[in-house]
Amino acid sequence: MLPLTVLALFLTLSPASALWPLPRQISKGSTALKLSPSFNIKLSDIKNAPKDLSDAAARTSNYLRNDKLQALVVDRGASSAERVAAAKSLKTLSVSLVSSSKTVRSISEEAIAPLESRVEGYTLIIPADGSDATLRANSTLGLFRGLTTFEQLWYEWDGSSYSLEAPFNIVDSPAYPYRGFMLDTARNYFPVADIKRTLDAMSWVKINTLHWHVVDSQSFPLQVPGFLELSQKGAYNARSVYTASDVKGIVDYAAARGIDVVAEIDTPGHTSAISKSFPEHIACPEASPWTQFANDPSLITSCTEPPAGQLRLANPATVNFTASLLTSAASLFRSSYFGTGGDEINLNCYTQDNQTQSELTAQGKTLDEALDAFTQVSHKALKAVGKTAVVWEEMLLVHPVTLANDTLVMVWISSDNVAAVVQKGFQVIHAASDYFYLDCGHGGWVGQNPLGNSWCDPFKTWQKAYSFDPLANLTTDQHHLVQGGQHLLWTEQSGPANLDSIVWPRAATSAEVFWSGSGGDIGAALPRLHDIAYRFNQRGVKAIALQPEWCALRPGACDLNA
Amino acid sequence: MLPLTVLALFLTLSPASALWPLPRQISKGSTALKLSPSFNIKLSDIKNAPKDLSDAAARTSNYLRNDKLQALVVDRGASSAERVAAAKSLKTLSVSLVSSSKTVRSISEEAIAPLESRVEGYTLIIPADGSDATLRANSTLGLFRGLTTFEQLWYEWDGSSYSLEAPFNIVDSPAYPYRGFMLDTARNYFPVADIKRTLDAMSWVKINTLHWHVVDSQSFPLQVPGFLELSQKGAYNARSVYTASDVKGIVDYAAARGIDVVAEIDTPGHTSAISKSFPEHIACPEASPWTQFANDPSLITSCTEPPAGQLRLANPATVNFTASLLTSAASLFRSSYFGTGGDEINLNCYTQDNQTQSELTAQGKTLDEALDAFTQVSHKALKAVGKTAVVWEEMLLVHPVTLANDTLVMVWISSDNVAAVVQKGFQVIHAASDYFYLDCGHGGWVGQNPLGNSWCDPFKTWQKAYSFDPLANLTTDQHHLVQGGQHLLWTEQSGPANLDSIVWPRAATSAEVFWSGSGGDIGAALPRLHDIAYRFNQRGVKAIALQPEWCALRPGACDLNA
Repeated sequence: MLPLTVLALFLTLSPASALWPLPRQISKGSTALKLSPSFNIKLSDIKNAPKDLSDAAARTSNYLRNDKLQALVVDRGASSAERVAAAKSLKTLSVSLVSSSKTVRSISEEAIAPLESRVEGYTLIIPADGSDATLRANSTLGLFRGLTTFEQLWYEWDGSSYSLEAPFNIVDSPAYPYRGFMLDTARNYFPVADIKRTLDAMSWVKINTLHWHVVDSQSFPLQVPGFLELSQKGAYNARSVYTASDVKGIVDYAAARGIDVVAEIDTPGHTSAISKSFPEHIACPEASPWTQFANDPSLITSCTEPPAGQLRLANPATVNFTASLLTSAASLFRSSYFGTGGDEINLNCYTQDNQTQSELTAQGKTLDEALDAFTQVSHKALKAVGKTAVVWEEMLLVHPVTLANDTLVMVWISSDNVAAVVQKGFQVIHAASDYFYLDCGHGGWVGQNPLGNSWCDPFKTWQKAYSFDPLANLTTDQHHLVQGGQHLLWTEQSGPANLDSIVWPRAATSAEVFWSGSGGDIGAALPRLHDIAYRFNQRGVKAIALQPEWCALRPGACDLNA
Repeated sequence: MLPLTVLALFLTLSPASALWPLPRQISKGSTALKLSPSFNIKLSDIKNAPKDLSDAAARTSNYLRNDKLQALVVDRGASSAERVAAAKSLKTLSVSLVSSSKTVRSISEEAIAPLESRVEGYTLIIPADGSDATLRANSTLGLFRGLTTFEQLWYEWDGSSYSLEAPFNIVDSPAYPYRGFMLDTARNYFPVADIKRTLDAMSWVKINTLHWHVVDSQSFPLQVPGFLELSQKGAYNARSVYTASDVKGIVDYAAARGIDVVAEIDTPGHTSAISKSFPEHIACPEASPWTQFANDPSLITSCTEPPAGQLRLANPATVNFTASLLTSAASLFRSSYFGTGGDEINLNCYTQDNQTQSELTAQGKTLDEALDAFTQVSHKALKAVGKTAVVWEEMLLVHPVTLANDTLVMVWISSDNVAAVVQKGFQVIHAASDYFYLDCGHGGWVGQNPLGNSWCDPFKTWQKAYSFDPLANLTTDQHHLVQGGQHLLWTEQSGPANLDSIVWPRAATSAEVFWSGSGGDIGAALPRLHDIAYRFNQRGVKAIALQPEWCALRPGACDLNA
């Protein structure tokens, strides 16, 4: 056994260790060590190392050469120059798999495995004497996580990459299998390059899921095989489209970085854009409802937003259309999961739709009974092509829909609703607006709103997200149902212009909560969060400043209790 | 006389006119007009046209060629293609000065003139029949404003730049002479390129003043002749410095774009950074005060932030040092104005400084009397080199300091304090935190602050700034004292990563309030604000999205009362 200590205080030492998320177990020393100019990552112990692993190692080498991040201390490392000059050089990081199975799975294959079979742990040992460092794991995905950790250990001064904290012994694995980030590409469109840059950034903090809320009522940018009219008529324009080739590019890029892309086509609400190409399937299309609903304040606060329009869930043709659309869309993705939505179903929309009312009457069904049938057809169709459904909380808590036991349920309205989901025995993904909505607090997007407030004020600070307890109000025997969580970016007021700045470094805080577990101290976390934010900027992702640089260079000096 | 109508409703027509700020007087038609492929801006009627005017005309031509902004309507202009194809072509914009004075002043010279002598009006007439458009003004600065307006009139479709609203008759001039934007480059440093890009953006909405809060307690990036130690020891690092050459570059770049750079060296508070090179002049330097002050909640809320340190205002050597520093720094700038600060003077700092206490006792002065003497020496030194002082409101409202009548007073604590400044007969610049602070509402920057709130919550929406009445609570005979106002970016949580996204398009709203006057309707403004934000992005300034693109393409459709 290695001598391991779980640390927290340690990390407030100067220069602060820059690991984010914090490894579950780490011990470190106080010896200087630098990377040899001939430093290399040795994969030769792995027979038939998959290409995405060698690519990952090449990216690590590239970051080690180009990050050029100076330590966040007042002299930026100058006073350590002599120690670094005299330090031993690390020439090799030797990478190996623990299991000697003949078939080595690629990172990409492992990244898209079901949550329960995803293996991300690794052991990283870096001696202080310059002898080979070793990275070992049971999976190439675990090795990738370890490479990511390795990249964060080094600062640059005068051409040398060094650490002052060798030796390191790190044994690490995530607290929760699902660590996500949700991006809405329907309210405003994001070019593929923005998504790929975001995937890189996600991988740097070990986020393993892109929840891609790809379409919504405002636009339908996804090219779905067999349903090309949807994007032809529903995208904002011909350039604001994700082609099948774009999607494959994104999915492959993500998988090679340990990220599963869980796409969502939100149904039966949030589907107005479908009315442009398949009007027969959409109740209450965009013409009227915003006005009518706006006259009823209780409906405004249900957060319906224009354009209105929902799938005619009682119409058999629409039920079949939806199941076909979902399965065709799902075929573009490699994930075991697919999101079918289910949030904010607006009853007034169906009340005013004569066709839906007649169909319900003819079938002798209530709206909820029709929703149940609609959902079951969709979910069964997805299951038939190997996909497990992901739904928003209303499908369980508001409507009496029959869900398969393995359905993942996302709680968004309030973290208070998590307990109810778990009580019903379902696996939960934390996505609560009161902690993780990145869009809140920037004023309202609704026009003619003089107050300019937003429904989910105030702004959700990184401190708030970092304080989140994924197991709050749950009994011990319910803990296994918590799969993880994510920050979310709804894009009513976001686009390529502020993607990086509204997401980073805030979204890194949930990445740590769901990798390292809760209970972290915000004071101890801040120097490390500065560090990762500065490193992001070195790599071209524009994470914002959390404090004046004066504070960033002096851990603790700007604390209220300093 | 031209047939002029002041419009507001007109602008909600589709496609929305994209003028921002709204001209004071405009009439327009409904005829299509396009720019000829050989369109040119003719300056030959101006004898000896200054180079910065011909440069400005070249930039306008460049924007006309490269903006390629499509109309914000659902079909982006497609349905107008036939009208545009059949439209007359405008071949020439003929630019002339009304006065026939032999000496033509450059834009740069006029931009730095004192506020009362700055002339920015212009008349722009664009016939619908393709005959020459004319731009006339009494100043090259006015011509530049007119060129800026001209640039905003055109959309692009299929290679043509067109308008559907010819003819235009515009007679325009600003409601207030001071329309500014404040940038703090001390909490976090901004490279020169960021500042120049911001100057371009400012000029696009006719902002005429960069209030450059260049140094503060956290860092001293300004190289001041004769005081080079200040930046050598007080800047964050050797690269985070504005050299004299950088400053000249910024000042000249600004002036050529109609912008006066009013620099500020905040005194006697906000000067901790000076202690690194001139410790003898600084009371209570950074070591202790944050802790002590933090123990007294009333002092925390006075917004003192680390590091503490204030000029020893009762020490004659410090008084002389300050006056020399200010005059030397002022020599770098061409403006008639220079900011001497005066906000947030912390009494505890002086109470605990034995030297200051002895000096006060020896001189038989109260602290305020010493502050008065200190300020008068600084201001007289500046006046001797032709500079009028700009101060924060406390110098008038909190401390009984004798100020020259022409001092510009900036109100920041609350817009409620404007009336008190004006009652004392002083000229006021609106800079109130409750309307114009761009940093508010993003959580607190202070460490170990679990709530993560900020002192000036909530976020100041564009709607809030747009609703500002510069003349509120003032009598008619006080109106002339209101010189204008500005948005402000304090950069505790900002840096190059979010400069564009936190500033734009919000800062455009004060630009319109102080150019066009108050009373604008937020519903009518929104389509134009979308337009300028989209145009900014076409020009490489990353203004954020205010709404889903679905709403941006459908003026009014996302209004609450739609």
